[in-house]
Amino acid sequence: MATPYVPLLKEELDIVIPTIRNLDFLEMWRPFFQPYHLIIVQDGDPNKTINVPPGFDYELYNRNDINRILGPKASCISFKDSACRCFGYMVSKKKYIYTIDDDCFVAKDPSGKEINALEQHIKNLLCPSTPFFFNTLYDPYREGADFVRGYPFSLREGAPTAVSHGLWLNIPDYDAPTQLVKPLERNSRYVDAVLTIPKGTLFPMCGMNLAFDRELIGPAMYFGLMGDGQPIGRYDDMWAGWCVKVICDHLGLGVKTGLPYIWHSKASNPFVNLKKEYKGIFWQEEIIPFFQSATLPKECTSVQKCYIELSKQVKEKLGPVDPYFNKLADAMVTWIEAWDELNNTSEAASSKEANGVAAK
Amino acid sequence: MATPYVPLLKEELDIVIPTIRNLDFLEMWRPFFQPYHLIIVQDGDPNKTINVPPGFDYELYNRNDINRILGPKASCISFKDSACRCFGYMVSKKKYIYTIDDDCFVAKDPSGKEINALEQHIKNLLCPSTPFFFNTLYDPYREGADFVRGYPFSLREGAPTAVSHGLWLNIPDYDAPTQLVKPLERNSRYVDAVLTIPKGTLFPMCGMNLAFDRELIGPAMYFGLMGDGQPIGRYDDMWAGWCVKVICDHLGLGVKTGLPYIWHSKASNPFVNLKKEYKGIFWQEEIIPFFQSATLPKECTSVQKCYIELSKQVKEKLGPVDPYFNKLADAMVTWIEAWDELNNTSEAASSKEANGVAAK
Repeated sequence: MATPYVPLLKEELDIVIPTIRNLDFLEMWRPFFQPYHLIIVQDGDPNKTINVPPGFDYELYNRNDINRILGPKASCISFKDSACRCFGYMVSKKKYIYTIDDDCFVAKDPSGKEINALEQHIKNLLCPSTPFFFNTLYDPYREGADFVRGYPFSLREGAPTAVSHGLWLNIPDYDAPTQLVKPLERNSRYVDAVLTIPKGTLFPMCGMNLAFDRELIGPAMYFGLMGDGQPIGRYDDMWAGWCVKVICDHLGLGVKTGLPYIWHSKASNPFVNLKKEYKGIFWQEEIIPFFQSATLPKECTSVQKCYIELSKQVKEKLGPVDPYFNKLADAMVTWIEAWDELNNTSEAASSKEANGVAAK
Repeated sequence: MATPYVPLLKEELDIVIPTIRNLDFLEMWRPFFQPYHLIIVQDGDPNKTINVPPGFDYELYNRNDINRILGPKASCISFKDSACRCFGYMVSKKKYIYTIDDDCFVAKDPSGKEINALEQHIKNLLCPSTPFFFNTLYDPYREGADFVRGYPFSLREGAPTAVSHGLWLNIPDYDAPTQLVKPLERNSRYVDAVLTIPKGTLFPMCGMNLAFDRELIGPAMYFGLMGDGQPIGRYDDMWAGWCVKVICDHLGLGVKTGLPYIWHSKASNPFVNLKKEYKGIFWQEEIIPFFQSATLPKECTSVQKCYIELSKQVKEKLGPVDPYFNKLADAMVTWIEAWDELNNTSEAASSKEANGVAAK
């Protein structure tokens, strides 16, 4: 099928999809995703075959691949939880990542036009953020908008954008208690805005429809220890979002939220979710004040240095909340070691390993 | 003319309008404003007669009235600048204020329906804000929305809302340089959202379409010294916004921006504006870092105490930038003295004075 538009950053972006089933959902995304390379992270039983619709360019990693590539460091990659997707961020060689869940479909804007979510994310990432002062007309770089009266001129160059957080029509991203209380609630409000989350403000980052600049923030996009063998699930993207925001604030990078929307088709089971989430519901009351007050010393000039420092603070401040956080802090260090091994530090080894396996 | 809706807070809200001309613009607002009491602050020549369309309930103050009511303290109220509107906030006896410029008309939403701006402001003020953590689906209290996954449950009660900042379709609120560069730019994007400006983040507050809770934040809504005899204009609302936001953050109050839109009909002259603004364009580069780093001691438990403390810091930190800020800091103190005189402190005197004059 011919694509009706010019795909932006075709050679510089990978699409990462965690899944346990056949990827029929890609059919609907074909006009938008087919020009790009996909990295599929197969969760669960590695012996199951995942069907990918013909015509897509992809590499697929199952648990056996992850274990072989990372060896003992594979312990930092979650199993039986969509947190496993961050392995895809690690093996990518591209500057940008877009990640999407396999129950997300193409949404329509109020005029009925299908939304090219990826294109909007790329636009968000390629233009600056404004984390230091709020602009009441939202994204000042968008056509038809600008900085309003009273916006300091010295801040109008903005900051590089590290993250673009997209939203969802239909099934909203609610926690289990809210799902239980409002089983029929659907998000039908299309808010035509992209905005920068101000410096110093945390937000709940959802991994369903998310893009980021791997070079700027990749090593902080660790989705933690969730699922099989762990006391918690469904906090993978939240954990990443809190760490990412603290580090972006420290390094002067921007995080945007808003457009684009995807159509989230399927609510997960609230009873199952409650079981996965309930410790998180307690813990987040301590985790969030921790991240709100976390500061990084000025010696932390790279994402890796920031992340290692943050892991120490997690151990010190959250370890007393539950031993799980000691394990998580160790996994944060392992993640950085694995990242560096597959990427810059041991370049030769990583290219030998990561390119050789599982690429189809 | 019968009003086609139930006016909210009819006995608890005043509409404050600064003007130098006949108020024909009220005809368009009649269905929405007629049930409310208006406070008109006449700027410029007090001998000029301002015509108000029949059927509106109003009181009108000109410069002679202001001088008579405030005596020597009238020096804190600007002349020949829309900053004079804050006199209306001071003489009001109501809990809520809505203020609007006389070149603002009723806007339409994307469905073509006329927007009752005042009703939306009241809804914004009556429901809580969420300054401590960002909600990616915007106002969580709105129908069809809620707090998303990862939002701490302990923060879901929100904070009382002190300010509702509305936006403008058609002519955007740009500074003179941007007006000069983009003379034809119009704002046509209707963003269907209300959001809380996070704690610790400053924003450019525009006085064109603004509502607030007088009891919560009134004494901080001082629009400064602008216009006649002052080196600066068009920074009245900005100044108020910076002071208000620092004090709201300190007192745990919320500030919202977004809906409702009004239709801003007339761009002011950019050449005239440049003359009024140009010192502000320099000064804001120092004013904003000052407010970003300003902290108030915990002894400041009332808006008045916060404001007096802020005036001291203005004198100390901004006085060296220009002697104007010493004068402004003194006027901030005078404003609070006048506020207290007309309101709580000398209740008897204020009701005698403020009710006796100019009320029609």
